[in-house]
Amino acid sequence: MIVQKYKDMLQGKSVIRQLSEFATARGAEIGYENVFDYSLGNPSVPAPKEFTDTMIRLLQERDPMELHGYSQSLGIPAVREKIAESLNKRFGMQYTGNHIFMTTGAAGAIAHAVRCVSQPGDEILTFAPYFPEYGPYINLTGAQLKVVPADTDNFQINLEAFDQMLTEKVAAVLINTPNNPSGTAYSTDTVRRLAQIMTEKSLKYGHDIFLISDEPYREIVFAGVDAPYPSRFYPNTLSCYSFSKSLSLPGERIGYVAVNPECRDAELISAMCSQISRGTGHNCPPSIIQLAVAEVLELTSDLSVYETNMNLLYKELTALGFECVKPGGTFYMFPKALEKDAVMFSEKAKKYDLILVPSDSFGVEGYFRIAYCIGTEKVERSLDAFRRFVRNEYK
Amino acid sequence: MIVQKYKDMLQGKSVIRQLSEFATARGAEIGYENVFDYSLGNPSVPAPKEFTDTMIRLLQERDPMELHGYSQSLGIPAVREKIAESLNKRFGMQYTGNHIFMTTGAAGAIAHAVRCVSQPGDEILTFAPYFPEYGPYINLTGAQLKVVPADTDNFQINLEAFDQMLTEKVAAVLINTPNNPSGTAYSTDTVRRLAQIMTEKSLKYGHDIFLISDEPYREIVFAGVDAPYPSRFYPNTLSCYSFSKSLSLPGERIGYVAVNPECRDAELISAMCSQISRGTGHNCPPSIIQLAVAEVLELTSDLSVYETNMNLLYKELTALGFECVKPGGTFYMFPKALEKDAVMFSEKAKKYDLILVPSDSFGVEGYFRIAYCIGTEKVERSLDAFRRFVRNEYK
Repeated sequence: MIVQKYKDMLQGKSVIRQLSEFATARGAEIGYENVFDYSLGNPSVPAPKEFTDTMIRLLQERDPMELHGYSQSLGIPAVREKIAESLNKRFGMQYTGNHIFMTTGAAGAIAHAVRCVSQPGDEILTFAPYFPEYGPYINLTGAQLKVVPADTDNFQINLEAFDQMLTEKVAAVLINTPNNPSGTAYSTDTVRRLAQIMTEKSLKYGHDIFLISDEPYREIVFAGVDAPYPSRFYPNTLSCYSFSKSLSLPGERIGYVAVNPECRDAELISAMCSQISRGTGHNCPPSIIQLAVAEVLELTSDLSVYETNMNLLYKELTALGFECVKPGGTFYMFPKALEKDAVMFSEKAKKYDLILVPSDSFGVEGYFRIAYCIGTEKVERSLDAFRRFVRNEYK
Repeated sequence: MIVQKYKDMLQGKSVIRQLSEFATARGAEIGYENVFDYSLGNPSVPAPKEFTDTMIRLLQERDPMELHGYSQSLGIPAVREKIAESLNKRFGMQYTGNHIFMTTGAAGAIAHAVRCVSQPGDEILTFAPYFPEYGPYINLTGAQLKVVPADTDNFQINLEAFDQMLTEKVAAVLINTPNNPSGTAYSTDTVRRLAQIMTEKSLKYGHDIFLISDEPYREIVFAGVDAPYPSRFYPNTLSCYSFSKSLSLPGERIGYVAVNPECRDAELISAMCSQISRGTGHNCPPSIIQLAVAEVLELTSDLSVYETNMNLLYKELTALGFECVKPGGTFYMFPKALEKDAVMFSEKAKKYDLILVPSDSFGVEGYFRIAYCIGTEKVERSLDAFRRFVRNEYK
């Protein structure tokens, strides 16, 4: 029989999706260029030309039998080695290809990492504000997502609450830095103290507690921001990466898990992930995409637009009286709403064709997310809408 | 802590993999062209040129933002509609795009289909001989794979045993036609009788029993063979397809689930699959590959080599005294070994550089699989090796 659990899940439609659909519908009325659609976190700059050129060259030059053949279920060995080398060079790590497991994006990476280190019934901690998809990502494995309340002063980590919630039932801690939705990058001090608490508790409980570090925004860090590579600070770390944002390839589903070489059983974890794949039907990302990203590992799309947009918005919104932690990276910012009920605030903003996501589904009340991955010209035009919105509704 | 279950799975190495590695090692000694490597089921003909041309055209002409953008988690709507139309035309079905869910190959398709219609503890039946990966595919969902003994007369279905094993605990029946490893296509009569028993039992137990039809070899059917489309005979059918074999794209991981429109909740099942994806980290196959296969739906690689090879081998092996059901499709055949212990038989064959997979892991004893997806010239040269093998070891 049809499984009711999945049927029931169809009832819930995410707030982000609803707002995005509203923006599309409104665009049909007044022209989409006049809707300040800050709802979706989709890259707004194209993939680098070198990626396209590499794909074409692979198609033209390689034997199709080899190009489109099965990759090993862990990923193509040469691709894994290149990724290891690139990470070592950039972050001073000691990865080999054996520590890299290729996945279909960050979702695939997290799906494997969670199953590798937790069993049904275990708890996984994450920190508010958090990406709402972590709920189904974790809970459908049978483990249970628990959310540590936000440190709303700066959207670093509420270490006191973390220390209390890190009980013996916790198998892993899931972080996302730079963070969706706050835009904050965890500082060296934050990561160091997080690692310290996890080390102490692992010793106290007599079992490993794993750090799962979700890093799709790793390459979008703004000038002068302290945004360390978390795995350097804690051996039992599985870093989950996606090329979706850095290369603007969200539809091509390509990413990886990088297992810290000092992690317990480090050499086995990639192979274990490929066992997990047999049950989830994952079976490695497409060969041609693996081969193509391996050729452009040191490149990104032109990501500068995101910092430009952030600066414009941050300046205007703070001038308008919004409280806002200045983002360290990503293409999100997370100001405090001008009334307690962020849903009501977002509803009122629609009148000015401003599409803003209320914070409730991110695990915090009273804030809103701006996904400023849109053209700068549109950001500039939106500033007047913000001004009118605040003046008319809140002055 | 690292999950022991997956660590333990690393101990088992499949017989097929071991034989393939033996063939590679032997190839290093005597030249791989002299090893008659019948171990792996990998396509031996290239993807159609039209596929390559389409990929290049998409890369050259499409806006990269659109081309590489997120597809809906159910798949790109236009792609799903084209697939529905193609299936309707070929098989007289009434699919719409809403009945198609895009997946990363057949493994992804089965992973979703099984989760959609079964819960942990339920039983899923399949028929020997069967693809050994069905074990982890099913059992890692928490459901339990039960294997109906083979009908060794013709490798159709042992209906009597099926009738007995189709108890109230069975949520779904998983078939694979044309079949890996036997090469048999289920006849119209077989599928009709299968459907009849399933309909009767559904009524008797008062709950739906689903048919999951795994069809990666659907396009490889030999002249004059009766190989019907199973979904036509049973409404509650989820057809799982992969383009791996028909377009020789195993590494690109592209396939789909097609939900019979007369199936209960047919319109919901694709959407339910995309809920399942949130937990498995599947999140739809790569956009560019979806778009490219949609342009070549009516094409296949030149699959004729498989029938040529089958005829050569079938003629020689039956002349040598092998009992063998003539394959109706695929690139496999499944003769009876010349001694009771197929593992021993396969071991002796190695002396003649014949790499044959003993049947035990397919759920039948005393047979062996020949994966004749290799060049015809090599098949021809292998015939003398078969002759020497039989003469020296069994006469």
